[in-house]
Amino acid sequence: MKRIILLGSGLSATNLIQYLLNHAEEHDWHLAIGDLNTEVARRKVKGHPRGSVFQFDIFDDALLTSVVSGADVVISFLPASFHPRVAAACLDARVHMVTASYVSKEMMLMDEAVREAGIVFLNELGVDPGIDHMSAMRVIDEIRRRGGTMVSFKSSTGGLVAPAYDNNPWHYKFTWNPRNVVLAGQGVSQFIRNGLYKYIPYHKLFDRLLHTTLPGVGEFEIYPNRDSLKYRETYGLQGIPTMFRGTMRRPGFSEAWNVFVQLGLTDDTYTLENSQHMTYREFVNAYLRYDPEKPVEEKLCDYLGIDPDGEVMQKLRWLGIFDNRPIGRPNATPAQILQALLEEKWELEEGDKDMIVMQHEFIYELKGNLKRITSSMVVIGKDSEETAMSITVGTPVAIAVKLLLTGKISLTGVHTPVIPHLYNPILDELETFGITFTDEEEEYQAP
Amino acid sequence: MKRIILLGSGLSATNLIQYLLNHAEEHDWHLAIGDLNTEVARRKVKGHPRGSVFQFDIFDDALLTSVVSGADVVISFLPASFHPRVAAACLDARVHMVTASYVSKEMMLMDEAVREAGIVFLNELGVDPGIDHMSAMRVIDEIRRRGGTMVSFKSSTGGLVAPAYDNNPWHYKFTWNPRNVVLAGQGVSQFIRNGLYKYIPYHKLFDRLLHTTLPGVGEFEIYPNRDSLKYRETYGLQGIPTMFRGTMRRPGFSEAWNVFVQLGLTDDTYTLENSQHMTYREFVNAYLRYDPEKPVEEKLCDYLGIDPDGEVMQKLRWLGIFDNRPIGRPNATPAQILQALLEEKWELEEGDKDMIVMQHEFIYELKGNLKRITSSMVVIGKDSEETAMSITVGTPVAIAVKLLLTGKISLTGVHTPVIPHLYNPILDELETFGITFTDEEEEYQAP
Repeated sequence: MKRIILLGSGLSATNLIQYLLNHAEEHDWHLAIGDLNTEVARRKVKGHPRGSVFQFDIFDDALLTSVVSGADVVISFLPASFHPRVAAACLDARVHMVTASYVSKEMMLMDEAVREAGIVFLNELGVDPGIDHMSAMRVIDEIRRRGGTMVSFKSSTGGLVAPAYDNNPWHYKFTWNPRNVVLAGQGVSQFIRNGLYKYIPYHKLFDRLLHTTLPGVGEFEIYPNRDSLKYRETYGLQGIPTMFRGTMRRPGFSEAWNVFVQLGLTDDTYTLENSQHMTYREFVNAYLRYDPEKPVEEKLCDYLGIDPDGEVMQKLRWLGIFDNRPIGRPNATPAQILQALLEEKWELEEGDKDMIVMQHEFIYELKGNLKRITSSMVVIGKDSEETAMSITVGTPVAIAVKLLLTGKISLTGVHTPVIPHLYNPILDELETFGITFTDEEEEYQAP
Repeated sequence: MKRIILLGSGLSATNLIQYLLNHAEEHDWHLAIGDLNTEVARRKVKGHPRGSVFQFDIFDDALLTSVVSGADVVISFLPASFHPRVAAACLDARVHMVTASYVSKEMMLMDEAVREAGIVFLNELGVDPGIDHMSAMRVIDEIRRRGGTMVSFKSSTGGLVAPAYDNNPWHYKFTWNPRNVVLAGQGVSQFIRNGLYKYIPYHKLFDRLLHTTLPGVGEFEIYPNRDSLKYRETYGLQGIPTMFRGTMRRPGFSEAWNVFVQLGLTDDTYTLENSQHMTYREFVNAYLRYDPEKPVEEKLCDYLGIDPDGEVMQKLRWLGIFDNRPIGRPNATPAQILQALLEEKWELEEGDKDMIVMQHEFIYELKGNLKRITSSMVVIGKDSEETAMSITVGTPVAIAVKLLLTGKISLTGVHTPVIPHLYNPILDELETFGITFTDEEEEYQAP
């Protein structure tokens, strides 16, 4: 019997657990799930005879060592900062490891030792990073095979509420870690466009949008997603004139979100000494000029040049950000105060489904002609447990684990799924789960 | 003979050294100056029989111990981050210490041990912090003595070029650490106004200006200077409805500087991988939208809403920021690239003099009436060595050292000059050096 250890059983682990248990009998697997809180894991295992649950604390070194030593593969769905601890234990015990997270510097430094141990650490096997890499590299490799040269690559992903449940003026609900959404984009975003490097500071990010349409689900806007430059190396596209990665939101979201950025409400670096005794209205007012008479709304519109009767103000009013309702949180950062309000308003309601959208645009030259391939994916969640996020993060990880345990992966070292040996079997099987890309190819005229 | 050790002999130490040597014979002092580079110190000592110079490296622990052990007082003019090392050595050797810098957390934690050792560590004895504290506290204490209650305190300082040498469109030259000027204001600025907390993120800082006039030297604009709130405790003004600290520039400076902030050119957190092969024009273009045809100037004016024929563009053109001249610095941060250009253009020319301006506005209530005191200081440098910065930073430190060595300071522990025992004798003697405040008092009508 092969022993699979899963550490962490949170939101995105549902479909992973389901897949592994569904295939456990066939391949003679046992899945043991470790979590601080065993209740959620127990609910997801549903009494399956091939599954078990144990209490797990990443800070208990002896426990980690003993858990890992008996395993054939360890999957870490813990917060990404804990992966190196797990990786070190796996290396000691010569056990394969799989994660859905970015390869950290610490993980990368283990590459040689992992290779020498004859094992493999597979990473970036979720949706973003994960399905984005795999689907992009399959098309890029195919373009190369046909003799084409990539001249532009743009890739965007979004986690949103599914259209049928999209019933608020922001056209957005939290389908993923709210804190990451509030802090998204801080620092500088960088990409390259027609050979020119472009850098966008955070306070300008939500003002520098692209726009696109996805078949069947309508229009989206795209804001730049951090460092697009490093992906040139990941994808073997050194020297490509245009390389851009973005985050998708529904049209109008970014203009309204930008109000929070401009005011400074997404700052997480200091606390407000009086936050406990403030109302949301006073919170907004703390970021506006003093005026003995003008109401907060009028000052805000004057300050940022907002139409008092427009959609931005409609979105802000809907959130209740001008309400004289107490915040009730002591020593909170602006970002924490904003997040608490958003969590009330942007919560998925009973029965709501989420949606993951992804779109790549490849422009390449072939025999003197420019061509464009647009490749789009839409995944809608099944219910509040089997979310689109859980389906798209958990399924590729699960498939990779299966490939590993059935001897289909002949790799050692630290890897991501940018090679055909990994992306082909995973993408092929993902299609059976309805995770598919619709490709359109056309002649392209440079504008 | 009393032995004074001065560590660091940089820009602001000239007048300190001069004062101590001038009084050395009278009080039987010897001044020994330690610096990595002994040449500057030697030039400043000018062969004075009561002065000597030695090579000093703060990372040489044995040297630090031996230097401190023979001293009656140690003055640290090293970069502020090194003060705690010096302080620890002084504490061990039970030797007084004096600095012009803010009391760091590490220094504050030594307070009890310093008191128990029967010695005193005097800090914040320069101009800002230093003269600002002393001059403000003298007025505040006097208002209290007369039975008044402070309702508003605003205090601003600026280091600028003296009016007679103010010959560029920015009305600014570097008279102090250029790096600090380029990075000034990053983070959040906070103050309180009529009982309302106000927070300004960096990208809005140079858009939130006050204006003032100083007798004899004309008009200034003021932008908020970081955390004004903590000064309520420093000055014993807990509960004051309005507390604001600011930095003074000539009118028009901030609007043009804001262009750099808005573009992101003052960011020091990442490097441009292509900076070595870029021109300044390409550098600016990297922060603007891609456009196949529009020139950089036009894109900038469109992006930030700047008048193409206005004063802001005149200032930017004067700097050469649009020139196709190579930057020639590999892996530079945006802030480093900007600083290198500014250092060429904002350098003090031969014969130029600098200026320090400071202004406090005190509003207080006395027997039901509001009154306002405006207290202004202007100090002009004498030459390129005896700058206003050196005069105002070095002289109060020197006076404090004299008071200490002549037994006029009966304190132990870590202190700043917010108490009459310190500020009265120092301010009185500063007047003999022309460092004086002009006070105006008037009835005040709340607007």
